[in-house]
Amino acid sequence: MDAIVDGRAMHEFDRMWAELAPIGRRADGGYRRFAWTPEDAELREWFAAEAARRALDITVDRAGNQWAWWGDPDAGTPGVVTGSHLDSVPGGGAYDGPLGVVSAFLAIDLLREQGRKPRRPIGVVNFADEEGARFGVACAGSRLLTGQLEPARALALADDDGVSMAEAMRRAGFPADHVGTDPEALRRVATFVELHVEQGRGLADLGARVGVASMIWPHGRWRITLSGRANHAGTTPLAERCDPMLDLATLITEVRESAGRHGALATIGKVHVEPNGVNAIPARVTAWLDCRAAEQVAVEEVVNDVELGFETRIKAGLKGGVEAGVERESWTPATVFDTDLAARLGVVVGGQDGPAAPLLGTGAGHDAGVLSTAGVPTAMLFVRNPTGVSHAPDELAERDDCLAGVSALARCLAELTA
Amino acid sequence: MDAIVDGRAMHEFDRMWAELAPIGRRADGGYRRFAWTPEDAELREWFAAEAARRALDITVDRAGNQWAWWGDPDAGTPGVVTGSHLDSVPGGGAYDGPLGVVSAFLAIDLLREQGRKPRRPIGVVNFADEEGARFGVACAGSRLLTGQLEPARALALADDDGVSMAEAMRRAGFPADHVGTDPEALRRVATFVELHVEQGRGLADLGARVGVASMIWPHGRWRITLSGRANHAGTTPLAERCDPMLDLATLITEVRESAGRHGALATIGKVHVEPNGVNAIPARVTAWLDCRAAEQVAVEEVVNDVELGFETRIKAGLKGGVEAGVERESWTPATVFDTDLAARLGVVVGGQDGPAAPLLGTGAGHDAGVLSTAGVPTAMLFVRNPTGVSHAPDELAERDDCLAGVSALARCLAELTA
Repeated sequence: MDAIVDGRAMHEFDRMWAELAPIGRRADGGYRRFAWTPEDAELREWFAAEAARRALDITVDRAGNQWAWWGDPDAGTPGVVTGSHLDSVPGGGAYDGPLGVVSAFLAIDLLREQGRKPRRPIGVVNFADEEGARFGVACAGSRLLTGQLEPARALALADDDGVSMAEAMRRAGFPADHVGTDPEALRRVATFVELHVEQGRGLADLGARVGVASMIWPHGRWRITLSGRANHAGTTPLAERCDPMLDLATLITEVRESAGRHGALATIGKVHVEPNGVNAIPARVTAWLDCRAAEQVAVEEVVNDVELGFETRIKAGLKGGVEAGVERESWTPATVFDTDLAARLGVVVGGQDGPAAPLLGTGAGHDAGVLSTAGVPTAMLFVRNPTGVSHAPDELAERDDCLAGVSALARCLAELTA
Repeated sequence: MDAIVDGRAMHEFDRMWAELAPIGRRADGGYRRFAWTPEDAELREWFAAEAARRALDITVDRAGNQWAWWGDPDAGTPGVVTGSHLDSVPGGGAYDGPLGVVSAFLAIDLLREQGRKPRRPIGVVNFADEEGARFGVACAGSRLLTGQLEPARALALADDDGVSMAEAMRRAGFPADHVGTDPEALRRVATFVELHVEQGRGLADLGARVGVASMIWPHGRWRITLSGRANHAGTTPLAERCDPMLDLATLITEVRESAGRHGALATIGKVHVEPNGVNAIPARVTAWLDCRAAEQVAVEEVVNDVELGFETRIKAGLKGGVEAGVERESWTPATVFDTDLAARLGVVVGGQDGPAAPLLGTGAGHDAGVLSTAGVPTAMLFVRNPTGVSHAPDELAERDDCLAGVSALARCLAELTA
């Protein structure tokens, strides 16, 4: 840890972390901070208060993302932006998102303490609805901002209670009628640097505190619908059943085997059973496949295996379900971050005397990927996660590593605004 | 069909059926009529109106069951009761329950048209919460009535929204404070005859319209908890995962194989995944096993296979989940209906010149089983179901068969009150 982040920064880190800690926390330590909920409103108020505390100018763009500016990005040159998101997956950890936002504010504090006068404005962003946990589309805020998500489609998305995004925004006091691409807000961003807790043990294995992202793997989601015939569990002979639950079992097993064969990551993490009664043979089982790999072809092989498996079984009339449908819900090709920028920041993060920071690929999507796709020069810093766990309460970053991340981020901002 | 049920009875059947048809019906034709909901209240009002229309005396017992009496069961001898329930499973059919209640009222109409003067009171019952779809315990109304379900336990049961049965009753205007066993209401029942749509194709295969129940198979429910380790689906290597979804796949497959081996019916119809996020390896998967068989030992073998399977796999450290628990939620031993009564009604149902009605066992639980267990001489009549489907929109009984059921039920009531 740099000596420079001792003292005040450590105290500020603890204060901010303690303020965020109770918001949306469940009994098991996991977080539920869904977009446009009362928890989200509390987080957004916290963001605005931190900006005000530092006399940064707050704006909210047409996609609902919050920006806090040190310097005026409309006056001369556009700015360097850092930050992340404050929402969470269901049962998520404390660091995914908030660490990037907290570090952004602390990096500005550090630069000010050092008496730096940046030659470009510096912005802190809180992207709305990064996890997509409520409405099913990840990075909704940055995708709307950059035109990668149609406003009409986004507003019509519904949560599990049937509440649309438009309605949820209205309830949260955000003018859903004006939601749309915001080229003006985007134009202010000359460069984006997102700091994030690592979602694996890459840095832990290397013995490094902070790394730089090389790329985001290609990744996608598929919805698989297995239709059978509802019937009474206590009276229908086994031979007469069309039970889609049996197909779910085959699907789960096949997905895992196929992923292993092709070197991909593939997961069935969400399942919806209808009618989901103890004594009812299901009419329908819907399962969601999440698949990612360093190489796009590996993802395609897994999806192909799934589709082929169903075709073969349906033709053979072997399984319970009478119909199966595989539909792609989302697809993001490989995102390779700006190579020169990554190399430059790798040296800055490594420090004056050390080796360049390690370069890591990741399977997780981020707003940084969306901005990169939109043509913004973008980089990501990762902070070591000793458990390697992500999207769960065991997700962790040690305080010393977090402060090392703050110091590294401050050096990157200084470099990019010098 | 007997000539006697022509005309007025047919018209009445159509009227009552048309009145019930829209209550709680979903777009796909399936019904959602959960206990102590607004739909249930509408059904209970309908029951009271039908009773009033026939000048029957309405009472509600301490368990919330509705009774409509022709004659006073407290004046002299206790009565002969028929009826069923009006609630449904999620996405249930139109006949399961309502056919027994409608037939009960129509049978009284027939007896009156015939000028019969029953020597015992005749009652029609609408048992509350037979399906247990909302609070998880089937036959809650008859179990409470007969003391087979503790009032405190029942009242504390919660639905999926966390609403307790006590609170649901209060919202429905029923005095939950007085819920309890009701020996006085039970004492009025000398004999119980429940008419029900068949939940299989036994009668269809035999070419018979109406049959008599011999027994209800032993049946039970088990809750199986599979615990793993939540993590990010996009960043956790396959080898480092503890994914309980893989164990669910094994469980589903094993249950089906074991049921086939032992001649039992076994079903995984309900699954709950936590956190159920597309990009999250589940922390926990809960599955419910419903198992039934003509012989108790077959059920025990299936449950044993499941427990043994987990033990073996956990010891071998082979599977995704790190922990598995199998807990019995309910168990009902075989219910053999009063043999003499079944034989006697078999002859009555068969008619003066025909053979006795076929005797059928069933895997489905019923309030009739609960009353039989409580020591009430009890019988069940089944009406042919051409699809054999139950607990789903395709459940069916042809009108002619329904009217044949009404006629058979009226003859049974005449026999039992002569």
